Amino acid sequence: MSLSSFQESPSPFKSRSEVSRTELLKSSLLFKDVNPATLQELERTASSRTYSKGSLLFSQGDQANHFYLIKSGWVKLFRETLDGDEAVIDVLNDLHLLGETAIFENGQHNYSAEVIEESVLLSFPSHILKQAVENDSKMALNMLAVMSRFRRLQSNELEHRTVQNAPQRIGCFLLRLCNPNSKGAITLHLPYDKTLIAARLGMQPETFSRALARLKEETGIRVRGSTVELDSINQLSCYSCNACSESYPCDDLL
Amino acid sequence: MSLSSFQESPSPFKSRSEVSRTELLKSSLLFKDVNPATLQELERTASSRTYSKGSLLFSQGDQANHFYLIKSGWVKLFRETLDGDEAVIDVLNDLHLLGETAIFENGQHNYSAEVIEESVLLSFPSHILKQAVENDSKMALNMLAVMSRFRRLQSNELEHRTVQNAPQRIGCFLLRLCNPNSKGAITLHLPYDKTLIAARLGMQPETFSRALARLKEETGIRVRGSTVELDSINQLSCYSCNACSESYPCDDLL
Repeated sequence: MSLSSFQESPSPFKSRSEVSRTELLKSSLLFKDVNPATLQELERTASSRTYSKGSLLFSQGDQANHFYLIKSGWVKLFRETLDGDEAVIDVLNDLHLLGETAIFENGQHNYSAEVIEESVLLSFPSHILKQAVENDSKMALNMLAVMSRFRRLQSNELEHRTVQNAPQRIGCFLLRLCNPNSKGAITLHLPYDKTLIAARLGMQPETFSRALARLKEETGIRVRGSTVELDSINQLSCYSCNACSESYPCDDLL
Repeated sequence: MSLSSFQESPSPFKSRSEVSRTELLKSSLLFKDVNPATLQELERTASSRTYSKGSLLFSQGDQANHFYLIKSGWVKLFRETLDGDEAVIDVLNDLHLLGETAIFENGQHNYSAEVIEESVLLSFPSHILKQAVENDSKMALNMLAVMSRFRRLQSNELEHRTVQNAPQRIGCFLLRLCNPNSKGAITLHLPYDKTLIAARLGMQPETFSRALARLKEETGIRVRGSTVELDSINQLSCYSCNACSESYPCDDLL
């Protein structure tokens, strides 16, 4: 569950580990319908590696020599203040990109990235992306679409931090884990631990606990460990989406 | 004072009203060093108009037929929830763009835009921008640079909402109005009214008043109406920037 979610689903009949590098690239919106030569060059320069939990991929301010595509796993993007506080900017999973924007600005990563569970990542030299954007206008339009989408999701996030209360924000987070086409009862599994969900939503762990208790009380959803049970999507959408400028299901979930 | 600030200064010897359309376009980072044919096409299709205070340029969800460059004045970008609450996403002034990203995604504006004091805006048909990006790779790279910068500023904002307290956020807002090269005392004028500054910072007016009082008490800055006096930049940077992952002056102010 991440702020940015610009992936399309790869073949539903294969697990991510069976998916070839070409198929993986083609499932990312960034590489959709690009020139075959662009795709070949990206494939040729890509390197795949497994990272263990806790690996720091890069730190804020580092030179952006590579960008990454997540094949499987979870990566946390965060920033650390001089006072030592940490702000989680996003938590990304399969088919998301990271470190891709720095090269269009000052060449430095503007967040740090840490692997939070064993992950397989494809990395690419940054200059290849810039070159691809210069040589292939479809690649430029895709990159702009990805960034526009991210900007919209960040605007959503700022809106929610302004007008939604903490239980509504947790409700929104859970709603985005649901299949919008589901009818009837739904059982969800939290994608990562509650402390990180709290941080991702900009809350202290104790605020998160209190807010989750209030959400359960006010909507009737049931939470046991990392399992959440809903009677229907309405149970949460009535509660959270009235305090949002978009209506459920949000465009990017469709 | 806006979240996005990707303009360069036009000639310092001319007021904005004397600046020609060509000079105005050239002062925007978006159009820097683009192909002369691209610039000509943009100039040819641009239309200039004065908007009075309160004019609604477009609403969230509207088809994005035009994008705008602010020649002079102030424009508020905002979102409204079903419950009727408003979240201010940004407040923009001279040389900022608005409505430019929608065309790379679903073609719909994802915020509303309202003129908050008499403004002169240049408007351009949206398809011209898409065409320019397709035909001129410099234009594509500029657009990506503008969007990367905006994304970084939005990440900053999310970080601040997470780790800075309300007085620190007001301090940051004031710091960004200062000339980073100033030595000694500084007198600032608030760029728009305090209610809007509060909304821009995601605060209720009463929270803003209390936070401003605490900021004055803790840093010794003086505020009279819309005038703010500082003994030095340090007075605020020591207070706000320790609770930030970037150090003063932020890259985009340089």
